[in-house]
Amino acid sequence: MSVTTVNYPEEFKGFAISDPSEWSNPKLTSYIPKNFGPKDVDIEIECCGVCASELAVLKNKWSSGPLKSLSSTYGPKTQCVGHEVIGKVVKMGPDVTEFKLGQRVGLGAQAFSCQECSRCKADNDQYCEKYVGTYNGVYDDGYISQGGYASHVRANECCIFPIPDSLESHIIAPLQCGGLTVYSPLKRGIKDVLAEGIKPVVGIIGIGGLGHMAIMIAKALGADVVAISRSTSKKEDAIKMGADGFIATGSTEPWEKENYDKFHLLLNCASSATDLPLDRLLRTLQVNRPFISVGLPDIREKFEVSPFTFLQSGSVIGSSKLGSKAEAIELLELAAKHQFKPWVETIPISEAGVSEALTRLNDGDVRYRFTLTGFHEFFGTGK
Amino acid sequence: MSVTTVNYPEEFKGFAISDPSEWSNPKLTSYIPKNFGPKDVDIEIECCGVCASELAVLKNKWSSGPLKSLSSTYGPKTQCVGHEVIGKVVKMGPDVTEFKLGQRVGLGAQAFSCQECSRCKADNDQYCEKYVGTYNGVYDDGYISQGGYASHVRANECCIFPIPDSLESHIIAPLQCGGLTVYSPLKRGIKDVLAEGIKPVVGIIGIGGLGHMAIMIAKALGADVVAISRSTSKKEDAIKMGADGFIATGSTEPWEKENYDKFHLLLNCASSATDLPLDRLLRTLQVNRPFISVGLPDIREKFEVSPFTFLQSGSVIGSSKLGSKAEAIELLELAAKHQFKPWVETIPISEAGVSEALTRLNDGDVRYRFTLTGFHEFFGTGK
Repeated sequence: MSVTTVNYPEEFKGFAISDPSEWSNPKLTSYIPKNFGPKDVDIEIECCGVCASELAVLKNKWSSGPLKSLSSTYGPKTQCVGHEVIGKVVKMGPDVTEFKLGQRVGLGAQAFSCQECSRCKADNDQYCEKYVGTYNGVYDDGYISQGGYASHVRANECCIFPIPDSLESHIIAPLQCGGLTVYSPLKRGIKDVLAEGIKPVVGIIGIGGLGHMAIMIAKALGADVVAISRSTSKKEDAIKMGADGFIATGSTEPWEKENYDKFHLLLNCASSATDLPLDRLLRTLQVNRPFISVGLPDIREKFEVSPFTFLQSGSVIGSSKLGSKAEAIELLELAAKHQFKPWVETIPISEAGVSEALTRLNDGDVRYRFTLTGFHEFFGTGK
Repeated sequence: MSVTTVNYPEEFKGFAISDPSEWSNPKLTSYIPKNFGPKDVDIEIECCGVCASELAVLKNKWSSGPLKSLSSTYGPKTQCVGHEVIGKVVKMGPDVTEFKLGQRVGLGAQAFSCQECSRCKADNDQYCEKYVGTYNGVYDDGYISQGGYASHVRANECCIFPIPDSLESHIIAPLQCGGLTVYSPLKRGIKDVLAEGIKPVVGIIGIGGLGHMAIMIAKALGADVVAISRSTSKKEDAIKMGADGFIATGSTEPWEKENYDKFHLLLNCASSATDLPLDRLLRTLQVNRPFISVGLPDIREKFEVSPFTFLQSGSVIGSSKLGSKAEAIELLELAAKHQFKPWVETIPISEAGVSEALTRLNDGDVRYRFTLTGFHEFFGTGK
């Protein structure tokens, strides 16, 4: 038996760390999955996007305690990440109704919601109090969830999305988390404008993994899109992605005056909250419109804002978390209809491949998203 | 000629300071009004509410430079405050169309907007870039505006409101600024909920001058209202004002859990931003709902929020400024229809009266709003 052969369904194989200082070198490991529930689905993974949240969790930047997996009541004490999964259904619990064996599906950053609370019932399942993340999440029974840099992943069907046939797996893997994370606030943030028959004007701050998808998605939703970055280094790329305009906030131009009262929505896709010229940015919002952050910084980092900052236009600021399952399905249908494609560089999965992806992502050396591929070859699956 | 006799229309008389350290002792003074414009209206003042912003401006807390009136190009170098004016029209420019001589009118915190920009045209005149405040505001010609602790006040008709006959002047004076300041975010913040036929649930934080009017106004708008205060000392009052519930944030109860996912809107009427248990408060908001501040602190004070704080419910936070003229008229009609009445203590105007009002307001010794009255008697006007 080869070292990579998977003893499925008793065990999954994946790349995991046991020490945050080793964040860039996950090692191949075997582990038992969570106990199989009646609504659970096992996905045999074909490919998996690489999301910046992986860095934050592997480095333990979003926690003030030790690595969560160390407290697992059963299952591995190590942590495997990855939550932009495309694969096929290979096992279903008796209560699964939405899928069939062999179907191609996607899984994002959420693996469980209760489906019973008012939030779940109102298509706000990403804000369910019982939310469990696809990795580094705590199930009721104490199992710490394990992600998609792996042969298989187990999740509740309520968090799994059908994939339209016309979409290529490795290209749309990043939509499962990153794409959905920008789709939800974009859709919610301009819905009222579209309903009035007005073309929304949207500013996308930070042209990276999230921002580049946000440009495409905002365009597909019918907005005028302005890319906002510190320098002009990504201007050409942003225009290729579909941006109608570009603002370099580091320039000496009075850009906030030239763009006064312009935007219906500012979507902040930059990962740092403190580096932003927040006061100047808020001047570009129309009255009572929002600045929404999806890029999450270190847990100790803060926005510092004076109530006066908002006063010039009665603007608001906040954050948005992922998207609902309904929104994920809408997004995938939008991608199929508009055929927009995230700019993806593929890296075959292996210890070296995972390490390369994480290291280069950490260095900002990606234009604009990695997808780990070749899972079938590596794990001997896909047969 | 008595010391208080006014040489109108060449001069107004009012109570003004020339040094922020003397904030609690404005002195009777004469001054020339701004040059009379074609849309200007002179109001002979009957009474004037006392607003907490007076304290901030007299103490120069909302500025990082010296007292603004010192830089006036003409007119007084002293500052008279007051912007909850009720009085009658005694002079009108040739282009005034909305009013007639002798009509009872109100004036709030805004004395000028351009009426030409997209914001003015969309009933967002309070966010007009050319906004001039009723006092401490800078006109294009360099005159620093002078407020309503005075015999008369001059303002553009676009900022003046007709007063329904059934309302008593001294009772509804505080609606001109304070009432409007809470009405606008209340109305805007629950409009979508009402449109869906749902009864909005609104939390009013800080039961003082602004908060007590917010309770009444939110009730009149059709909301379920919960008063939120540090202790239970104002609970009985809040219930009398119409509150359906009460939360004491300083108590040891897990109030944020008991009120999880409850509010469509949190309106912060407390004047300090840093004292609030912001993280706990945001847990009580429903998904994607706002926390809006109308109480303005010292200009150096900040909200400190982590993007993570918002994540549990995708909430947003912001500030709201005054209200539009259209909203002021709606509010006065709402007051006439529902006959809600701010709790007002009257103090006859004089140097001693103004000093008492400011000092007691500064000490929090007011339940819940002062109106300065007796202007006609004091200034020998009203004939």
